[in-house]
Amino acid sequence: MDDSILLAHGSGGKLSHELVERKFLPFLANPVLNKLDDSAIFEASGRLAFTTDSYVVNPIFFPGGDIGKLAVCGTVNDLAMNGARPLYLSLSAIIEEGFLISELEQIMQSIKKAAEEAEVSIITGDTKVVNRRQADKLFITTSGVGIISLGVDISGANARAGDKVLLSGTIGDHGIAVMSQREGLRFSMALESDCAPLNKLVSQMLKVSSRIHCLRDPTRGGLATTLNELARQSKAGIVVEEARIPVKEEVKAACELLGLDPIYVANEGKLVAIVDPADVDKILAQMRKNNYGRDAAIIGEVTKEHLGKVVMKTKLGPSRIVDMLSGELLPRIC
Amino acid sequence: MDDSILLAHGSGGKLSHELVERKFLPFLANPVLNKLDDSAIFEASGRLAFTTDSYVVNPIFFPGGDIGKLAVCGTVNDLAMNGARPLYLSLSAIIEEGFLISELEQIMQSIKKAAEEAEVSIITGDTKVVNRRQADKLFITTSGVGIISLGVDISGANARAGDKVLLSGTIGDHGIAVMSQREGLRFSMALESDCAPLNKLVSQMLKVSSRIHCLRDPTRGGLATTLNELARQSKAGIVVEEARIPVKEEVKAACELLGLDPIYVANEGKLVAIVDPADVDKILAQMRKNNYGRDAAIIGEVTKEHLGKVVMKTKLGPSRIVDMLSGELLPRIC
Repeated sequence: MDDSILLAHGSGGKLSHELVERKFLPFLANPVLNKLDDSAIFEASGRLAFTTDSYVVNPIFFPGGDIGKLAVCGTVNDLAMNGARPLYLSLSAIIEEGFLISELEQIMQSIKKAAEEAEVSIITGDTKVVNRRQADKLFITTSGVGIISLGVDISGANARAGDKVLLSGTIGDHGIAVMSQREGLRFSMALESDCAPLNKLVSQMLKVSSRIHCLRDPTRGGLATTLNELARQSKAGIVVEEARIPVKEEVKAACELLGLDPIYVANEGKLVAIVDPADVDKILAQMRKNNYGRDAAIIGEVTKEHLGKVVMKTKLGPSRIVDMLSGELLPRIC
Repeated sequence: MDDSILLAHGSGGKLSHELVERKFLPFLANPVLNKLDDSAIFEASGRLAFTTDSYVVNPIFFPGGDIGKLAVCGTVNDLAMNGARPLYLSLSAIIEEGFLISELEQIMQSIKKAAEEAEVSIITGDTKVVNRRQADKLFITTSGVGIISLGVDISGANARAGDKVLLSGTIGDHGIAVMSQREGLRFSMALESDCAPLNKLVSQMLKVSSRIHCLRDPTRGGLATTLNELARQSKAGIVVEEARIPVKEEVKAACELLGLDPIYVANEGKLVAIVDPADVDKILAQMRKNNYGRDAAIIGEVTKEHLGKVVMKTKLGPSRIVDMLSGELLPRIC
């Protein structure tokens, strides 16, 4: 086999089979995937969650992760945000002719590692190859299926006035890490993407409280966009305090330099939780026990005013309406 | 909203929401999708099939279909090929900046129509936008979930010596239709892709027989590659007769002109069935009642010889080993 991807690797014929057998199965092997039928078969019963995301991040390798880790964590997190325990993923790759097979192996290794941490199996997949300059290196689409325990009812539409708004940690790390890598910027401190699977954090939160109303991971569009989505879906107002939102010093510095507001910068290992005020302390304490929630904070609450809108009390005193991201801040961030 | 896709349509912010609300939901609306949570929730119980495919066909519009119809039918068919009844699809689009919104609407319309015919709902999705020349117009990835009835056990590994090999109709239509469109070739007769959802054909076949052992749709790599996959997975030999394989006159003519062998050309609305000889007549009769199986034929049988290989009795008399496609015949055919 050559050292780079050929169009014939996407032909469905001999080289496609060799690619799967030599470069994918050694990393992903499990009894369901190994059957290599047109679809994978599993048993399940109950309420299932189903989600999909395409990943087009540029560059494909960045501090703290790569497109493979991102594709596993992103889809695992989308399942977790509905309170589902992720079970199975599918993985579909669109590869540009000429892509290095050594880089593909590196990404498969990172997919394997992320899937092991999240305890999910990749049970079905596909590979397409397109001519040079018809795609940029590698795009990955993952879909996922998870199971929701009896009694769990988490949706962006469930926020109620009086609920507390929790954030699991610092914002902007992923966006700034990718941006810095892409633009060749160097900041004094090493900054890594926060890319991580949050399903165990969520399952620990669900163990201590049955009154978690909304969960969402503030990815593209950042914290501000996610809060706006939740306010709209729940037809409620959300008031947050700028001073309570954790932001790393290096992210603050980079944002100032680049003229960005960290509340619009993408995260890949953070979640917003809207919870009943009666349970907020125990949920917060539980979150802080998990490495991915150690900087968790209460950042605001749900109100009967400003329905469908997000209001931020700024550090300087006055409040302002914070809208969804308009325009495009950082293309190909995930 | 402008008449073409902007990077901001993929930002996750305002324009992303507008795109989903104005251009996707009007075509795909259903109670689960409409919730717009991170994942879609459905109830199911039993043996489920899960599959995924990315579609990168070029051109995106071709005689008999487009990338949208293909993305629905392809994934529906992969589920059906394990005997599953397709239930739900996910849909993820990677769009090149500058893509016309009118073309996107045309494709959504065709997705809607194909999903209606196949009786599946699209319940979750994603959209990414990449800069100009970082993708070619539009790539779509669909994943699907289906349910397998009790007692159904269909796998590429189930062929046994003595089984009959059925083909649901003419081969090469899709590949030649796309190729002709792409290269601007004009043949005397209008040729259309066979792109179609085969789940109803399969469910009708399953109604008349519980002895269908393998099903597979001969897409990329064509009939020859599919038969080789089945022979390898089942560790059996397959002998087919060239004279019994239906090929349209215009496909034959185009293949001669282009130097292609139709047994390697992609299909998107055909299936190979390997069945117990005792049931072959009733399965064949049933297939011919369905519009997508009206040209169905017995093309060969499974043998104890040539294990893992496919042998073709040619029209001229002698037999030859037919291997998987090697190299790449028609890039971006699906």
